[in-house]
Amino acid sequence: MGTDRDSGEFVREPLGVAERITADGSSPWPVEAGRYRLVGARACPWANRVIITRRLLGLEDAISLGIAGPLHDERSWRFHLDPGDVDPVLGIEYLREAYEKAVPGYDEGVTVPAMVEVASGKVVTNEYAELERDLSTQWRGLHRPGAPDLWPAEHRDEITALGEGIFHDVNNGVYKCGFASGQAAYERAYAALWARLDALSSHLATRRYLVGDTITQADIRLWVTLARFDAAYHGHFKANRHKLTELPVLWAYARDLFQTPGFGDTIDFEQIKQHYYGVHTSVNPTGVVPVGPDPSGWLTPHGREQLGGRPFGDGTPPGPPPADEQVPAPA
Amino acid sequence: MGTDRDSGEFVREPLGVAERITADGSSPWPVEAGRYRLVGARACPWANRVIITRRLLGLEDAISLGIAGPLHDERSWRFHLDPGDVDPVLGIEYLREAYEKAVPGYDEGVTVPAMVEVASGKVVTNEYAELERDLSTQWRGLHRPGAPDLWPAEHRDEITALGEGIFHDVNNGVYKCGFASGQAAYERAYAALWARLDALSSHLATRRYLVGDTITQADIRLWVTLARFDAAYHGHFKANRHKLTELPVLWAYARDLFQTPGFGDTIDFEQIKQHYYGVHTSVNPTGVVPVGPDPSGWLTPHGREQLGGRPFGDGTPPGPPPADEQVPAPA
Repeated sequence: MGTDRDSGEFVREPLGVAERITADGSSPWPVEAGRYRLVGARACPWANRVIITRRLLGLEDAISLGIAGPLHDERSWRFHLDPGDVDPVLGIEYLREAYEKAVPGYDEGVTVPAMVEVASGKVVTNEYAELERDLSTQWRGLHRPGAPDLWPAEHRDEITALGEGIFHDVNNGVYKCGFASGQAAYERAYAALWARLDALSSHLATRRYLVGDTITQADIRLWVTLARFDAAYHGHFKANRHKLTELPVLWAYARDLFQTPGFGDTIDFEQIKQHYYGVHTSVNPTGVVPVGPDPSGWLTPHGREQLGGRPFGDGTPPGPPPADEQVPAPA
Repeated sequence: MGTDRDSGEFVREPLGVAERITADGSSPWPVEAGRYRLVGARACPWANRVIITRRLLGLEDAISLGIAGPLHDERSWRFHLDPGDVDPVLGIEYLREAYEKAVPGYDEGVTVPAMVEVASGKVVTNEYAELERDLSTQWRGLHRPGAPDLWPAEHRDEITALGEGIFHDVNNGVYKCGFASGQAAYERAYAALWARLDALSSHLATRRYLVGDTITQADIRLWVTLARFDAAYHGHFKANRHKLTELPVLWAYARDLFQTPGFGDTIDFEQIKQHYYGVHTSVNPTGVVPVGPDPSGWLTPHGREQLGGRPFGDGTPPGPPPADEQVPAPA
C-alpha cells in the first residue's frame, strides 16, 4: 500500500501468492474438505467477499475460518481476538508467519483473505478474485444442497465488465479518496466514485440485483464496500457527498442484502471502525474510533421484494452461521 | 487551544481582550458609527454569532466588517482573501497585529470575532458573548428601523440557562469530540453532545424557536454549530451519530433559519471546510478538503411556518447584505 509520489494517488500493492486450489488436478493444491483454512478479518472488504461466498455456498464445514483482529501493526494482521493471541488451528500469532512459510523472505503485502494449508501452515493464495470464482466452480462438489450459482456461465462477461468498474471506482475508489496525499488526486477519485455510484443506483432502481435476477459475485463485490460506507469511508476516507443512508436505491439494495442470510451475518461494524480508524494513523493520528454512526437502520424494511428477483435462483438461503462465527447484531 | 494532558480533553483558551463598548460612558470605548471594525471569519462559529447579530440589527453601516480567510498559520488568522493579503481598512496582514497594538507582547489566543478601533488599530474586545449582548443593548441607537429584540429582558434568564448547556455540550462540545486525544475523553464529549441535541430536538419539536416565539440570541448560538455540522463536525470531529440532515426536527429548524435573512447569507460552506480541514493538521494531516457534503438541501422547504412564531417579533427582516459581503449560494 502506498501513494504515488508524483500524482498523490493511492496505489494498491500487488498480491503476493497466487496459486490455485483445483478439483481437476491442474494444480498442486487439490480441493479437499478440511485441508485449508481461510484467514479473513471482519474489517476487510476483500476478505468479506470470500467469507460471504463461503457462507452462501455452504462451505463452512469444508473450509474452516480464522479471523485476524482489526488491529494489525507494521508486521501484519494478527490474531489478537483469539485466546493467547494465537490462531487455534494454525498456531500462529501473525499472519505473516504463514506467508513466510510459503515464500521464505516474503516481502510483499500480508493481506486477507488468505487460504492456508493447515498441515504445512503455508499460504496457498491471497488472490481473492480468483479464489471466489474457484469456490463457485472448483469446490462445487462440496457445496451445500441448494447452493446458489454465484458465477453463472451465461452472465460471466457481464459480471466481469461490471466488476471492473466497481473495483476501480468503488472498492478501491474509496481507498483512493482516503489515501490521496493531495487535493487533486482526492478530487479525481471522489468524482469517479460518485459517478460510478450514481450509475449503479440508476441500474439498480428497477432491478433487484446487478446481473440477471439472482445474487451473483457482482453483488457481493459491490456490497462489501456499501456495508462499510457510513462506518468508515464516508468520514475517514472523505467519501462524503452523501451517506449511504441518504441514497435511496443503494441504501435499500444494501439493506436487502444485509438482511439476506450470508451477508449481514458476516459484518461486525465495531471491528470495521476499529480497523480503519485505529490502523491508519496517517489519516487519523489519535486513533480515536468514532462512536457513530447509528447502525440500527440496517434492519429496517427495504421494500425491494417488489422488484421481484429470485435471490438464490433455483437454490435456497443458507442456514445460520456456525456458533463460533456469530457476529453482534447492529445495535 | 490545547488538550489536557491527564484527561485528554480539549480545553478552550481564555479570551484575551475583554473591554466593552458602551453607550452610557461607562467604558473608554463609546458607541459610535464608523469607529470600529468587526473582524470575523466565515469559518468561525463564534464570529458567525456576532456577524448574524450585526446583520439582524442592521448595524452594517455603523460597524464595518473585515473577513479573515479560512487558512491561518501558527501566527494567527490572516487576511489572505483581501488584495495584497491586507485588510483594506486596518492595513494589516495578520490579525495578531491588532492584538499586539492593544496589548504589547500579547501572547494569548488571537481569535475572531474581534472588534477593532479603526483609528488606533487596537482590538477592543474579543469577548463575543458580551459583545453580542452589547450590540443588542448598547448599540440600540444605531439599529435599523424594525430591528428585532434578540435579547429580550423578559427572557434573559431562560436564554442564559439554555445557552450554558448549548455552549458546553454543543458549540464547544463538537471541539471536545474532535480534539480529544484519547478514546474516553472523546466518548464523554460525544455522549454529552448527543444527549443535548436530543433534548434540543424535543424542545424544538413543538415550538419554532428556542425561547418565546421569536428569534433570540439562543437561536443564533445553537444555529452556528448546526450550520457547520455536516460540513465539518460530523466527519472531521467524529460527531457522527447522525448527520444533521438525518435529524428531522433540528434539520428543519436549521433550514428555517438558514432561509431567514441574516443567517444563511452569512455562510460560506467552502470556507468552513477549508478552515477546519486545512488548519487542523493534527486531525487531518494531509490537509485534503472533502468535496462533500452536498449542501443543496439547505434551500428545501422546512415546513416550520406551521408552528407559528413571529421571527422578528414586532420588527421586520433585514434587507440583503451589502454588496461586498455577499456569500456564494450553497450549490
